Amino acid sequence: MTSTLPHTQMANAIRALAMDAVQKANSGHPGMPMGMAEIAVALWSGHYSHNPANPKWVNRDRFLLSNGHGSMLHYALLHLSGYAVTMDDIKSFRQLHSKTPGHPEVGYTPGVETTTGPLGQGIANAVGMALAEWLLASEFNKPGLDVVDHYTYAFVGDGCLMEGISHEACALAGTLGLKKLIALYDDNGISIDGKVEGWFTDDTPARFEAYGWNVIRAVDGHDVAAVSAAIAAAKQADKPTLICCKTVIGKGSPNLQGGDKVHGAALGEKEVAAVREYIGWSAAPFEIPGDVYAAWDFKSAGAKHEADWTAKFTEYSAKYPAEAAELSRRMAGDLPDNFAATLAAGIASTVEKKENIATRKASQNAIQALAPVLPEFLGGSADLTGSNLTNWKEITPVRSGQPGNHINYGVREFGMSAIMNGVALHGGYIPFGATFLTFADYSRNALRMAALMKQRSIFVFTHDSIGLGEDGPTHQSVEHVSSLRLIPNLDNWRPCDTTESMVAWGAAVQRRDGPSTLIFSRQNLPYQERSAAQIADIARGGYVLREAADAQVTLIATGSEIELAQAAASALAAEGIVARVVSMPSTDVFDRQDAAYKAAVLTKGVPRVAIEAGVTDFWYKYVGLEGAVVGIDSFGESAPAGVLFKHFGFTVENVVAKVKSVIA
Amino acid sequence: MTSTLPHTQMANAIRALAMDAVQKANSGHPGMPMGMAEIAVALWSGHYSHNPANPKWVNRDRFLLSNGHGSMLHYALLHLSGYAVTMDDIKSFRQLHSKTPGHPEVGYTPGVETTTGPLGQGIANAVGMALAEWLLASEFNKPGLDVVDHYTYAFVGDGCLMEGISHEACALAGTLGLKKLIALYDDNGISIDGKVEGWFTDDTPARFEAYGWNVIRAVDGHDVAAVSAAIAAAKQADKPTLICCKTVIGKGSPNLQGGDKVHGAALGEKEVAAVREYIGWSAAPFEIPGDVYAAWDFKSAGAKHEADWTAKFTEYSAKYPAEAAELSRRMAGDLPDNFAATLAAGIASTVEKKENIATRKASQNAIQALAPVLPEFLGGSADLTGSNLTNWKEITPVRSGQPGNHINYGVREFGMSAIMNGVALHGGYIPFGATFLTFADYSRNALRMAALMKQRSIFVFTHDSIGLGEDGPTHQSVEHVSSLRLIPNLDNWRPCDTTESMVAWGAAVQRRDGPSTLIFSRQNLPYQERSAAQIADIARGGYVLREAADAQVTLIATGSEIELAQAAASALAAEGIVARVVSMPSTDVFDRQDAAYKAAVLTKGVPRVAIEAGVTDFWYKYVGLEGAVVGIDSFGESAPAGVLFKHFGFTVENVVAKVKSVIA
Repeated sequence: MTSTLPHTQMANAIRALAMDAVQKANSGHPGMPMGMAEIAVALWSGHYSHNPANPKWVNRDRFLLSNGHGSMLHYALLHLSGYAVTMDDIKSFRQLHSKTPGHPEVGYTPGVETTTGPLGQGIANAVGMALAEWLLASEFNKPGLDVVDHYTYAFVGDGCLMEGISHEACALAGTLGLKKLIALYDDNGISIDGKVEGWFTDDTPARFEAYGWNVIRAVDGHDVAAVSAAIAAAKQADKPTLICCKTVIGKGSPNLQGGDKVHGAALGEKEVAAVREYIGWSAAPFEIPGDVYAAWDFKSAGAKHEADWTAKFTEYSAKYPAEAAELSRRMAGDLPDNFAATLAAGIASTVEKKENIATRKASQNAIQALAPVLPEFLGGSADLTGSNLTNWKEITPVRSGQPGNHINYGVREFGMSAIMNGVALHGGYIPFGATFLTFADYSRNALRMAALMKQRSIFVFTHDSIGLGEDGPTHQSVEHVSSLRLIPNLDNWRPCDTTESMVAWGAAVQRRDGPSTLIFSRQNLPYQERSAAQIADIARGGYVLREAADAQVTLIATGSEIELAQAAASALAAEGIVARVVSMPSTDVFDRQDAAYKAAVLTKGVPRVAIEAGVTDFWYKYVGLEGAVVGIDSFGESAPAGVLFKHFGFTVENVVAKVKSVIA
Repeated sequence: MTSTLPHTQMANAIRALAMDAVQKANSGHPGMPMGMAEIAVALWSGHYSHNPANPKWVNRDRFLLSNGHGSMLHYALLHLSGYAVTMDDIKSFRQLHSKTPGHPEVGYTPGVETTTGPLGQGIANAVGMALAEWLLASEFNKPGLDVVDHYTYAFVGDGCLMEGISHEACALAGTLGLKKLIALYDDNGISIDGKVEGWFTDDTPARFEAYGWNVIRAVDGHDVAAVSAAIAAAKQADKPTLICCKTVIGKGSPNLQGGDKVHGAALGEKEVAAVREYIGWSAAPFEIPGDVYAAWDFKSAGAKHEADWTAKFTEYSAKYPAEAAELSRRMAGDLPDNFAATLAAGIASTVEKKENIATRKASQNAIQALAPVLPEFLGGSADLTGSNLTNWKEITPVRSGQPGNHINYGVREFGMSAIMNGVALHGGYIPFGATFLTFADYSRNALRMAALMKQRSIFVFTHDSIGLGEDGPTHQSVEHVSSLRLIPNLDNWRPCDTTESMVAWGAAVQRRDGPSTLIFSRQNLPYQERSAAQIADIARGGYVLREAADAQVTLIATGSEIELAQAAASALAAEGIVARVVSMPSTDVFDRQDAAYKAAVLTKGVPRVAIEAGVTDFWYKYVGLEGAVVGIDSFGESAPAGVLFKHFGFTVENVVAKVKSVIA
């Protein structure tokens, strides 16, 4: 411990800030910060290695709240220990564009490592961070020079542990033996509906032992020394550790502690006053006594933590200059200098080969082309590696005790996606992971979180339509492509051939401010011929694949329906009807282009017909009320793919008829 | 056991049908049926109570495959035991509109109880079925007359147990003590990526014991007597039971058994022949020896099972005619005779009271109004009861050993939704369950499954936009309302006031061929005045709330944005611009109306502006390229609701400006 002040007052400072900020906002969650205050003291004043002056120090311990509604706990800790979170920021809790939003948001607040609130995802992010740390350490550390060497600490609540994603992520963490992951469980027996005994009776320690975790049971969460000792023990374990801390929610609130009413609402002025009396805290709201500040202050200690590491890294840089530069590049998220040339060569190769293959295979080819220059690639699949084709020649599967670059995530789509987000947040890797497109539903909120957090997670989805055939409607995405397009800041790509697939991979890797989905077919698709200018325009999301003067109709299609659009255009030409074809692999990217470009692609006054093997609603934003959409607004069926495309009207005849109806 | 034939040949009949059907389709999953064949013999010839001649017999045991890719196992069992599944149906495996689609689909095949394939949801459906059985039994059984008394059997695989939803559903099943739920785990150590030891090392028995289950360990899954004995023991347990059966995937395939290659592809003609040799099965493909048919035939036994029950139910009907009629009504899914009048009175009450309240509160009022005539209501919330307001005055919370009509599902959105689907599939109840709208993401695939299965599950989502305020973007749905509209056969309602909320509840309850979502605000919304004709038209999904002759613009809005549309229309009127207002609580229902009605609501030639606190893309299908949408295409922020609506442009000034831009 670095502090000489009684821990009680350090904990009470958290209680006071949390209850006062919530009271001022008249909104928020005082129960968790007041209940976990001593646990926070134990971790932050005794173990947590960080530097308030440099929240981006690469070897800091990662700390996060999976129970993110307790955000005021974290804000209080950041303020007290010396981060650039002022008392005015605390007073602005939950106000527009403040550094202290309702739930922790990465990018808003120095020291906040991830955005939490959707329960269970924080602990999955933590698994991803611990995974990244382990893999990166195995890549870069040298004898006596452990330049990557930190812990990941997560606070979790009952809600996180009820959520299914906690099962997925923690089971995998156990299997992989992520020993530097330490979770502190706020076992307070209360959730929003009341005492959890009516709906949550898991033997949680036994459950985590079944996952292969080290479990430290029955720690008094209000005894700083006991919690600190448990953390010290956890740091020595050869497994991930769950420290089960018995706590009283809202501890310090004489009339509300231990009940559900203290969870998610302001205590009220009267009870706030009663707390002050009860815990012996006489300072006014938003005032912290000097000795408490002094006890919490971690600025010089943090500076020393980083300085010690910097000395080590300086030695490392002298001995291993290439590795040092590479680690710095990787942690900065910069691509290698030869990436652009490698991508260009990959694109050229597709043009040369003109392969008629499934885009999932084209995706694998793209991975294979890029991986040699991207050691930061960390691939994986939710138990569909051979179907998603996320593997490449040089992979080493990640196993317990065996670092590598490809993860068999198991049948855990949501866990995989949130773990990927944790990897991206940690830095050092570009994670990608795959499943069938339909099961994007399972992981959907993690995709949303990646988009909200602006992280470079790459979500690969194969088997993208009724084109998967016999597996039937449970496996046939119909609404998914459009539905993913509705998530803000998520770039979605549905390429039509090998060249578009390569360009899409390039875009996803090069994008630094958000995630991408790469959506591929199960079935073979024909190669499309293009000019150099057309190839360059793929990266703009939409472009004219088949131009024609005096066109009477513009056909817009994506992915597997480009083949149909092209065939229909030819059939129309045979009837004397002039059609253009626009390929629109990414509507998201196309929408960001300048007005002139968009107008050149979607010529005004020329009627439009969109073709996509999915729901039609979305496409009216491009074709308008006067256009038409060839799509499918019902679930699919189980039958061979060719039968299904015909059954659902994806035929030249049907497209031609639709075109005639709009140009009539 | 009813059979005298060696069980080996009964099991081999399953193997032969499965491998031959997959071979003929050149698509499908032989590994699971071949591996679980003896388990199926043990259950179906020794325990499973059903009647092949009447798959809808209300007191049948429920049987389902959570590992639904093994569909040929179930089809083989249905065929062999005497259901209306012919050998021609088996030969049509995975062909369009056959009774034998790639994954089991309820409604396609007699005897199939639920649609499975998306892993983990089947076991959650089974939890729902067992829950419904228990609650229904507690409501209707009389001393000596247990007219509701059956087991629910589920086959589960490694994939199901890796999925997070298995944690959610099985934890709750343990807490509630659903002792008539028996799951048989196909512990074959193989998933698609290979041997699971690299990614799935849970101590599954310990995990389920941690949930409070009875676990029967290490049963030889190829020993019919051992499995049968385990099932017999499970039926006596006072907890749900997991029977862990060690099996060899693809058992009987001499060159492929025990490996991942036998999981999901045809064996090939050569291996099919090798299997025949290896297991001693000489019958030609799609031929079953007479003695094997005879051993499997359950028609007369099944008729006796039902006849015994019918005798009991006849006695019950004589002694308790009202209860018998009510049970029959409930299981038929018919509403009580006084439902329509009750709904009408509820609507009239909202008109009389003209309350300006949050629609989540209006929803609670609707539940309160309808519940007295709907004893089949089975409400619940994923730990947000007091926020979602799904409770009503007369609820009894469901607890272990305490049946009731409201379930605290815990923080388990996906589990809740799939359990609800199981309840609906079982019959006897109309389940509804709630969470915040953003967390529809967590449960999304269960909503899709309800729509695919045409089940009356009612999904209540509150806190439906940035209007929830300070909790911030993680909790603010932006894309969700539109995104739910993209799921086929899901009716989505976003009412604007108390009357629309009551009508929406009525529609959801009256809908027999699919699920509904009911989407409500956190914040208060003003009551809207309507004529009787307007009130009647609410049920059509969209209607003219404010009519005007010679209108220059039609404003279309939903939910909380109706208030803004009305205010904007008034502001426009003050400037001499005539605006109509269309309220569109359900675009799904509106889209099903006849063309004349739709044309009367969305007058041709009048420009349109849509207003909704969500993403804009969807609305172009109504406003076209010449219209405009007032929406929000980014994530929200953490701030008070009023600040946010203004910040994101939901103001009269902005709507007026948009209108001017489209009518210019």
